[in-house]
Amino acid sequence: MGNCCERLGPQKNTYMRVSLPAVCFVWQIAMIILFGVFIRYGKESEARWVEYRHNNNLTDLDNDFYFRYPSFQDVHVMIFVGFGFLMTFLKRYSYGGVGFNFLIASFGLQWALLMQGWFHSLDLDTGKIYIGVENIINADFCCAGSLIAFGALLGKVSPVQLMVVTLFGITLFAVEEYIILELLHVSLINQSNQISFTSERVFPDVLLLLQCRDAGGSMIIHCFGGYYGLAISWVLYRPNIHQSKHLNGSNYHSDLFAMIGTLFLWMFWPSFNGAIADHGDGQHRAFINTYIALASSVLTAVALSSMFHKRGKLDMVHIQNATLAGGVAMGTSAEFMITPYGSLIVGFCMGIISTFGYVFVTPFLEKTLKLQDTCGIHNLHAVPGMLGGFLGAVVAAAASEDVYGKEGLIHVFDKEGKYANRGMGTQGGYQAAGTCVAIAFGLVGGAIVGLILKIPIWGDAADDHCFDDEAYWELPEEEEEILPPVL
Amino acid sequence: MGNCCERLGPQKNTYMRVSLPAVCFVWQIAMIILFGVFIRYGKESEARWVEYRHNNNLTDLDNDFYFRYPSFQDVHVMIFVGFGFLMTFLKRYSYGGVGFNFLIASFGLQWALLMQGWFHSLDLDTGKIYIGVENIINADFCCAGSLIAFGALLGKVSPVQLMVVTLFGITLFAVEEYIILELLHVSLINQSNQISFTSERVFPDVLLLLQCRDAGGSMIIHCFGGYYGLAISWVLYRPNIHQSKHLNGSNYHSDLFAMIGTLFLWMFWPSFNGAIADHGDGQHRAFINTYIALASSVLTAVALSSMFHKRGKLDMVHIQNATLAGGVAMGTSAEFMITPYGSLIVGFCMGIISTFGYVFVTPFLEKTLKLQDTCGIHNLHAVPGMLGGFLGAVVAAAASEDVYGKEGLIHVFDKEGKYANRGMGTQGGYQAAGTCVAIAFGLVGGAIVGLILKIPIWGDAADDHCFDDEAYWELPEEEEEILPPVL
Amino acid sequence: MGNCCERLGPQKNTYMRVSLPAVCFVWQIAMIILFGVFIRYGKESEARWVEYRHNNNLTDLDNDFYFRYPSFQDVHVMIFVGFGFLMTFLKRYSYGGVGFNFLIASFGLQWALLMQGWFHSLDLDTGKIYIGVENIINADFCCAGSLIAFGALLGKVSPVQLMVVTLFGITLFAVEEYIILELLHVSLINQSNQISFTSERVFPDVLLLLQCRDAGGSMIIHCFGGYYGLAISWVLYRPNIHQSKHLNGSNYHSDLFAMIGTLFLWMFWPSFNGAIADHGDGQHRAFINTYIALASSVLTAVALSSMFHKRGKLDMVHIQNATLAGGVAMGTSAEFMITPYGSLIVGFCMGIISTFGYVFVTPFLEKTLKLQDTCGIHNLHAVPGMLGGFLGAVVAAAASEDVYGKEGLIHVFDKEGKYANRGMGTQGGYQAAGTCVAIAFGLVGGAIVGLILKIPIWGDAADDHCFDDEAYWELPEEEEEILPPVL
Repeated sequence: MGNCCERLGPQKNTYMRVSLPAVCFVWQIAMIILFGVFIRYGKESEARWVEYRHNNNLTDLDNDFYFRYPSFQDVHVMIFVGFGFLMTFLKRYSYGGVGFNFLIASFGLQWALLMQGWFHSLDLDTGKIYIGVENIINADFCCAGSLIAFGALLGKVSPVQLMVVTLFGITLFAVEEYIILELLHVSLINQSNQISFTSERVFPDVLLLLQCRDAGGSMIIHCFGGYYGLAISWVLYRPNIHQSKHLNGSNYHSDLFAMIGTLFLWMFWPSFNGAIADHGDGQHRAFINTYIALASSVLTAVALSSMFHKRGKLDMVHIQNATLAGGVAMGTSAEFMITPYGSLIVGFCMGIISTFGYVFVTPFLEKTLKLQDTCGIHNLHAVPGMLGGFLGAVVAAAASEDVYGKEGLIHVFDKEGKYANRGMGTQGGYQAAGTCVAIAFGLVGGAIVGLILKIPIWGDAADDHCFDDEAYWELPEEEEEILPPVL
Repeated sequence: MGNCCERLGPQKNTYMRVSLPAVCFVWQIAMIILFGVFIRYGKESEARWVEYRHNNNLTDLDNDFYFRYPSFQDVHVMIFVGFGFLMTFLKRYSYGGVGFNFLIASFGLQWALLMQGWFHSLDLDTGKIYIGVENIINADFCCAGSLIAFGALLGKVSPVQLMVVTLFGITLFAVEEYIILELLHVSLINQSNQISFTSERVFPDVLLLLQCRDAGGSMIIHCFGGYYGLAISWVLYRPNIHQSKHLNGSNYHSDLFAMIGTLFLWMFWPSFNGAIADHGDGQHRAFINTYIALASSVLTAVALSSMFHKRGKLDMVHIQNATLAGGVAMGTSAEFMITPYGSLIVGFCMGIISTFGYVFVTPFLEKTLKLQDTCGIHNLHAVPGMLGGFLGAVVAAAASEDVYGKEGLIHVFDKEGKYANRGMGTQGGYQAAGTCVAIAFGLVGGAIVGLILKIPIWGDAADDHCFDDEAYWELPEEEEEILPPVL
Repeated sequence: MGNCCERLGPQKNTYMRVSLPAVCFVWQIAMIILFGVFIRYGKESEARWVEYRHNNNLTDLDNDFYFRYPSFQDVHVMIFVGFGFLMTFLKRYSYGGVGFNFLIASFGLQWALLMQGWFHSLDLDTGKIYIGVENIINADFCCAGSLIAFGALLGKVSPVQLMVVTLFGITLFAVEEYIILELLHVSLINQSNQISFTSERVFPDVLLLLQCRDAGGSMIIHCFGGYYGLAISWVLYRPNIHQSKHLNGSNYHSDLFAMIGTLFLWMFWPSFNGAIADHGDGQHRAFINTYIALASSVLTAVALSSMFHKRGKLDMVHIQNATLAGGVAMGTSAEFMITPYGSLIVGFCMGIISTFGYVFVTPFLEKTLKLQDTCGIHNLHAVPGMLGGFLGAVVAAAASEDVYGKEGLIHVFDKEGKYANRGMGTQGGYQAAGTCVAIAFGLVGGAIVGLILKIPIWGDAADDHCFDDEAYWELPEEEEEILPPVL
């Protein structure tokens, strides 16, 4: 029982009674104040919609709500159940996995509404951000970046550190996204000198011109989130974490809980990649491409998992993770005319690359680079996201009027105003540049945030108490520990 | 093993082999007969829709099905997976939690279609109830009231008693709802003297005038359901329940199962509050407000959970429950122009009040009022529901043409016909009165039902066999109990 | 520990390291090639939709995506989480249940897109299959047939055998479906002699005339899938499977995981039956009928489960399975005017028949027919599906213009072109014939596939190692097996 008691013993340095409530209260109050100053209902969600609808001869069905809400709910499930339960696979850190995911996503989506609002939806006349269902979907997307980073840190950081990771993660995300996508502002700039002036002063014109397409976020979500988490984890290297090795693993039922997460992520990924794609064919195509790519990933992940085991057995880690790599890599290209067999090929390769990563690359990185990546986000998000970004560049560069049709090409690539004459090769180049921007933001931002988190005030557990809910959760007494005396 | 064997021993008084099948068969046959007499397809779900559509120049998309079905499925998940799995947290009553929830909701929704149909959708010319997707959503809502009551009784009553709780719960709900909302009948009354005559004979005019708005059911669902369950539980007080104390708790995995329930409730609550809101901006706004309020609840629930633990650890009970309080309290106001920061403030306060309730109020009520509330519905449904009702009154009273627009105000508050000239202050007063009606129905109805359930014929378990699936479920033999002899 | 070690020992004959990767790779590469040759985006999912929409005066909402996507996602959840988790109920085969389900459904849906495409959507001018959301839903449906068959084989076959079951299952399904439904081709035939020539050469006219309606697949999915699985299982009879008896059962938590599957199947079954029904009233009615029938099944399943236990206790097997029988049986009739009380009666009877089957028929079949049916698909799919098929025949035969209206009758039964004058009695006869076709395909096809699987090259486990994940999965070390030495 000695080992047992030690595990149950109190850890002074994980005392959260002041810092966690303080962070939650202060930041939540800040959110209320900032929402009060900036956030208002958009025209489709405020009561004057009835008048607006009458005046513009619209029906209620034209409200964007009906186009996007079903996809939104799927995305929402991915963020909270998908990511949350995927991280319950550790035998003694399941509460932390699903619980901290819940906490930081709930904070993150509020902060994202503000950050993304300031960059994308700020009405410079009134100084307000007008929100609707699309902002809400984007806020969930924005959280995904920080949740991915959480995957690398799982079991090794305190909830307060995770809040800090989220605060900076959302901030970096919004800036990076602005640079890469730069969607709404541009049209504003073309309409009004006054706004153009304000905006161009801050961001030089060259960046504005990126204007990439990335509906499912291979670049801005997965690639950024992956490298962000890896950089933080690298800075926070724990040399003696082998002392917690007995807890850094799953048991039979914790792996089943994780499969709930995997399956909801897998099933709803088509909605993720299509949620903010163009109405009509855009959403329809994004959904078909992702659906197909994911199916293909499953088969190659299974094949490699079996091949890499000396007796041909399957490893739950690969089934839980590598099966999703096709969805990650299709994030940028899903709305393009990549063709159904193209999607199959992407899924095929990603299942292989990702499983290979779990078997060889993660142990290699841990040994040589001192990079500890609990969930293997390097193989599920960073690399497939990066490849997805470059793939998007190639697919965009190859786009032609023959395939898309004249109107279709304009529609898919938003070739309007200033960008009407941009060649497809140029667009491809910008897409590739966007991917590099995402990597750079992730690595540099993550390194800085990692340094901040190294300050010894955040209440993270000692190396021999990682991967243990005991540190931050009131745990129920277990029957196993009660029964023996009875026997 | 003594303790073990005793737990496995048969309990004569929980013998269900006659009563449970009898109740299920008789009531199900009654449902079939009543459906045969009363229930018919509505015009949007019957085959003549094609003609109706042609004659009225509509498209298939105008079918209410497409407006409400995605929200319905979310509500359906909340009722069966949300409530069901939330109640699996007890280590040895998980089958009862999810299984009885399944049983009573399946019965309840049939009875609700009839009861709500008689009150709201009865065509007095033909004597039939014409159903469509909105009736189905309302039937699910109606079940929610009884499922909330189940939360207070969890582990202490027999399935037959739960069927009785549901039968009366649905009945009371439909009457209470009729008094508070009184939606469709009024317009009928204005159109035809004959119907008005029938209707007014039964319900005096003063009640008809309440006409509250309560799209997400803070009053009619949560407040009523909460007090209904508490009143029943109070009457059924078990002085010696401490004999089952060892089973009145969770274990590591049962708490994870409960998190499945929590997360599906939390994620889909925006759909719950928006499911029967007005098409267009009504649904859109209800959804945004609820989404925001829930996020805010999570942070304050976490903060208080940590503050109230002597070493700052989080308690799963709070994470599972108090995080949802913001959704409950937004039930009435979600479709109003409460503003996004208003929603944040509501969630902020509710997370605090609810967690405070779990830490202090529930033990206090148990000690002083002899009120045993297994799931703490007092803190999650009764109080937040009541506060949500009064909040709705305040928000309604504060509504103005400035904020809503002229048409918007009429639209949101159904200010038509008889009610066109009702002032907003008056509306607020009626909303507050509606909340009081809900509380009164809950308390008085619950007390009466409690007395009925006290008759010793229902097969509930003895005080020392509560919270144990052994009484009503054939349990699999457990490995733990097989392995020791092998060793 | 002897028993333990034996269980952990390697099994030479379950060595999958060559065969499983080979099958996955070869078949996935074949899919890529075939997709490259045949599969293209449909007009609603390709970039030229913008032009098409302009030219035809449509809006984005007319894109079928918005009619069917929410239902699709529900179906998708049923296939992967519903079927997957329903099959986790075995205490030591949960990984196999959910994991192999994931694998074969992912392969199956690709193969189904091709097979169904060739039979239903092949454009004979271009030789391409143009896919959209409806094809994707049908592909998921097609997988369901093979997943049902998996239920009978659970724990007794290798993943490679399951891939073979799926390959042939999908193929048989597509042919059977073509014969029974024969939807799109017919209209082509009437329009063009050239196509008619090609088509009629292959399938004689008499079969083409079946043209049954089966939106929810009682016949083509459940009846076929059920008998297909039973026939395979019958051929693969294992006389000494009692040696694995200690693993052929559930434990407390595995039954809870299975309830996740049950509930998602139960909740989303209305979407399943309505997913490809007619827009408007068809989907609306299919959904109401299924919702009602399922509720009724729950009550009678509970009643019989209690009646058949000597102390009146409920059996999780019945709650997990028999509650779904109403949805299976409504597959064909859900879109007809069966009336709400008719649906209730169907659910009522099916709950009884299915529970009765679990208690008496499955043991009887095992004893007399040597039929080993792990999940009892005979009681949940084969019989309710068959009865649902015949029920559909009766309901179709009873259809009249009085009830459906003139246009409604034409619309619901596709009485157009060649079939405009087909009497409703004749339609009923064809529906019954369709059910017989489904049974015949299942039994004969299953027997042949069973014989193929009897060849001793597929790596299935020995009789004393069935129902054990050890054979195909790398399992985590369990705490129970680590702790004892510490004590």
